[in-house]
Amino acid sequence: MNCSILSVGTELLMGQTINSNTFFLSRKLNELGYNVLYHFSVGDNPDRLENIFKTALDISDIVITTGGLGPTQDDLTKEIISRFIGKELKLNEDSLKKIKYYFEKINREMTDNNIKQAFIPEGAIVLPNDIGTAPGFILNENEKIIICLPGPPREMNLMFQNYVKPYLAEKSKYIIKSDIIKFFGIGESKLEWILQDLISNQTNPTLATYANEGELSLRITARGKSLEEAEKLINPIKQEIKKRLDKFIYSYNNQSLEEVVGDMLIRKNVSISLAESCTGGLLVSKLTSIPGISSVLDRAIVTYSNRAKIDELGVKRETLEKYGAVSKETAMEMAEGLKDITGSKICLSITGIAGPTGATSKKPVGLVYIGVSTDEKTFYYKYNFNGSRNKIRNYSAMTALNIIRKIIEKY
Amino acid sequence: MNCSILSVGTELLMGQTINSNTFFLSRKLNELGYNVLYHFSVGDNPDRLENIFKTALDISDIVITTGGLGPTQDDLTKEIISRFIGKELKLNEDSLKKIKYYFEKINREMTDNNIKQAFIPEGAIVLPNDIGTAPGFILNENEKIIICLPGPPREMNLMFQNYVKPYLAEKSKYIIKSDIIKFFGIGESKLEWILQDLISNQTNPTLATYANEGELSLRITARGKSLEEAEKLINPIKQEIKKRLDKFIYSYNNQSLEEVVGDMLIRKNVSISLAESCTGGLLVSKLTSIPGISSVLDRAIVTYSNRAKIDELGVKRETLEKYGAVSKETAMEMAEGLKDITGSKICLSITGIAGPTGATSKKPVGLVYIGVSTDEKTFYYKYNFNGSRNKIRNYSAMTALNIIRKIIEKY
Repeated sequence: MNCSILSVGTELLMGQTINSNTFFLSRKLNELGYNVLYHFSVGDNPDRLENIFKTALDISDIVITTGGLGPTQDDLTKEIISRFIGKELKLNEDSLKKIKYYFEKINREMTDNNIKQAFIPEGAIVLPNDIGTAPGFILNENEKIIICLPGPPREMNLMFQNYVKPYLAEKSKYIIKSDIIKFFGIGESKLEWILQDLISNQTNPTLATYANEGELSLRITARGKSLEEAEKLINPIKQEIKKRLDKFIYSYNNQSLEEVVGDMLIRKNVSISLAESCTGGLLVSKLTSIPGISSVLDRAIVTYSNRAKIDELGVKRETLEKYGAVSKETAMEMAEGLKDITGSKICLSITGIAGPTGATSKKPVGLVYIGVSTDEKTFYYKYNFNGSRNKIRNYSAMTALNIIRKIIEKY
Repeated sequence: MNCSILSVGTELLMGQTINSNTFFLSRKLNELGYNVLYHFSVGDNPDRLENIFKTALDISDIVITTGGLGPTQDDLTKEIISRFIGKELKLNEDSLKKIKYYFEKINREMTDNNIKQAFIPEGAIVLPNDIGTAPGFILNENEKIIICLPGPPREMNLMFQNYVKPYLAEKSKYIIKSDIIKFFGIGESKLEWILQDLISNQTNPTLATYANEGELSLRITARGKSLEEAEKLINPIKQEIKKRLDKFIYSYNNQSLEEVVGDMLIRKNVSISLAESCTGGLLVSKLTSIPGISSVLDRAIVTYSNRAKIDELGVKRETLEKYGAVSKETAMEMAEGLKDITGSKICLSITGIAGPTGATSKKPVGLVYIGVSTDEKTFYYKYNFNGSRNKIRNYSAMTALNIIRKIIEKY
């Protein structure tokens, strides 16, 4: 069945709150096998609310609203909807009891405007609010389902999990399975180009790509009567993609690059140390976001000054003078120096020009060297990245993670 | 004028991405004196996209779309809209040049499907994409304004700031002046409680608080016929807030904590070095996001292992054995050791338990010590943070930045 989500609240239109309710509901509804076709947001304005609710109801089987169930004058969702579908609002004694009890618990006096919240359209299924005052409800009207939920995310999430999810799960004919494949080192358009044939005849499963902060994802979504049926649809596609693009793929199950690398390091117990200059700790901070990394990560040294490169890593003064801090020579001496100090299996260094300043005629912003020293050898990579300081820093750190991934694969 | 925002992208309906573009645009449009009346989201489906675009155009003076301008087959926004309003798509040579140049710069081969992005509806104002490939455009059609922007937030934000904002500002009858005050060390509800009286009688200027990743902001927005008029409205409120909350305020002009601290360090030329354990480089990576920080930041050492704490910082083995790595003694020895090595004016250390593992009966997850060593003295702070691993890491780094800020104020 096709769903629309209608968020009610002027704060959304003012840009004062991000619409996390719609984000949450969309994910949950998809997991339950429902198609979400539209999102709508409207303010606390009776005419516009009625108008947009009518639009939503016309084009969907299920309309889920959030917000506008509270005690105040501008909480109108319930009133508008019940009037629109011609249902009277009736006092619901249970809900009133709950609201009174709620105020006792937080020992605050209950003002009369709260009673308004206990009125429910006749014939509706009441959805208790276990951590707030406003109950929600479900109306099943000539082939359409209308579900009204409160606006505060904590109340809405809990009400959905406890009461709406079971109701919808029982009604759903399908389950939806989504697999996400992650790529590095290939652009979105190139990826689309290579998978054009698979993408263009997409029905079930469907394929879609997303690019965000250097991470490129491909989502494969299948709908089936059972999980097995959905997986049967996904797996051949996954195999075909693996065949064409495996060398660019770092995860077949939606892990971030740092998760993949962190987990590999921990699982294979490969010790690692890092020496960062232009990324200024961004690489190690990504890696240390992974729980348990302390078992393999010995240390990271952010050597921003030349002096620090000399003291901490034993980079030769002559090297810095002759080739500069941003050079393959310095990158390799940083990695080798770190290797001597720590003995970690993998020692990686990054030195580059993140900008906006620091460029020279020979060394543009975005020039980055990555040095690696392992038990076998010391080597380097050279890159010319472009974009803002933070984009260059981020892409440098991602690239380093991918280099580490390639190395550990062999361990 | 009344605006609708139409987001195009199946990933929104699938609940895979939160709609940050609509959040951003709503705030910006309000700041420019425009009313946002509706938000819409629709997937990459031609009929539904056309249908919802028509609805939006009917009920608004300005429709702003995001997404669906990319090179791929399911990027349809431009095609649908130009067909709907009866404009032909024409190749825009400048845009094509830019796209080609973009691929040269990142030295990736440009696949043919990218050319599609250079086609613009006839008569449209082209909006250059300075950090990506897909240009946007503005169409001014019989009393209606249609603005199409790319989906990736970074590209959309920059395009809006550089090209759309000036265009809309010039059309707006009002000047909207927004000042943002940043707070640290106080919660959102406490802040609202202290400013209750100012917030509740808000008309012009309006006050709104936003909490995000440990950053707490208060926006004061005034609408006037001139900048002076708007500022006249804002200043007395600002003074009153300063009077009540100055000690919690680190910026009166919307700077991030790392910007404030970075700029102070650079301006006052105070050298600094860092020793991080549980934050794993997050603190130094925040600080190194500030251009020019290399003039004062000597080095940062991420000592994840005990051995690294001993080798790199001269922490005593006995100290680690007797008090543990997470203790005031270790924190202070880390800071003092760093001071001995670097001689930086400020040496700061962080050691703690970010979790989810690593807690003991005496040392819970969230226990964090921050040590500081200056020319005058060495001291420490103790905290018990709560939340996820990343929340604890982030809040620890923010707290350290705030400590540095307090120290430099005295220099």
